[in-house]
Amino acid sequence: MNELEISTAPMHRLCEKAGAERVSEAAAKKLGKVLEEIGVKIAKEAWDYTTYAGRKTIKVEDIEIAVRKVMEK
Amino acid sequence: MNELEISTAPMHRLCEKAGAERVSEAAAKKLGKVLEEIGVKIAKEAWDYTTYAGRKTIKVEDIEIAVRKVMEK
Repeated sequence: MNELEISTAPMHRLCEKAGAERVSEAAAKKLGKVLEEIGVKIAKEAWDYTTYAGRKTIKVEDIEIAVRKVMEK
Repeated sequence: MNELEISTAPMHRLCEKAGAERVSEAAAKKLGKVLEEIGVKIAKEAWDYTTYAGRKTIKVEDIEIAVRKVMEK
């Protein structure tokens, strides 16, 4: 995973929503990288459930159960 | 938090990176929403550390410690 999928602009806005005054560009990039890693982890878990259910398309329910598994670990 | 900051296009690419064949649009939207919620949680925690350190700009180290706190809970 070299190139990041999540850009820094939405990360700056997330930090604003969180009440932060300023965020360095490096910190915004770091936050995007972290969320991307968590996202890939959730997606991998979701895909396992998808295929286990005999499907080839990830559905909302697969994401929901995957989030519970990843965030509880 | 009504409007989402993280769009679905990068979520589809994250799922591809995770090895998934297809992702429904609703599932991609759900994944974006979840990552946004986690991101705001991390940013809030980071901002607490920032102000505690007497700063007004979130730095990489604030994100790093916040991630550990949020993901360990």
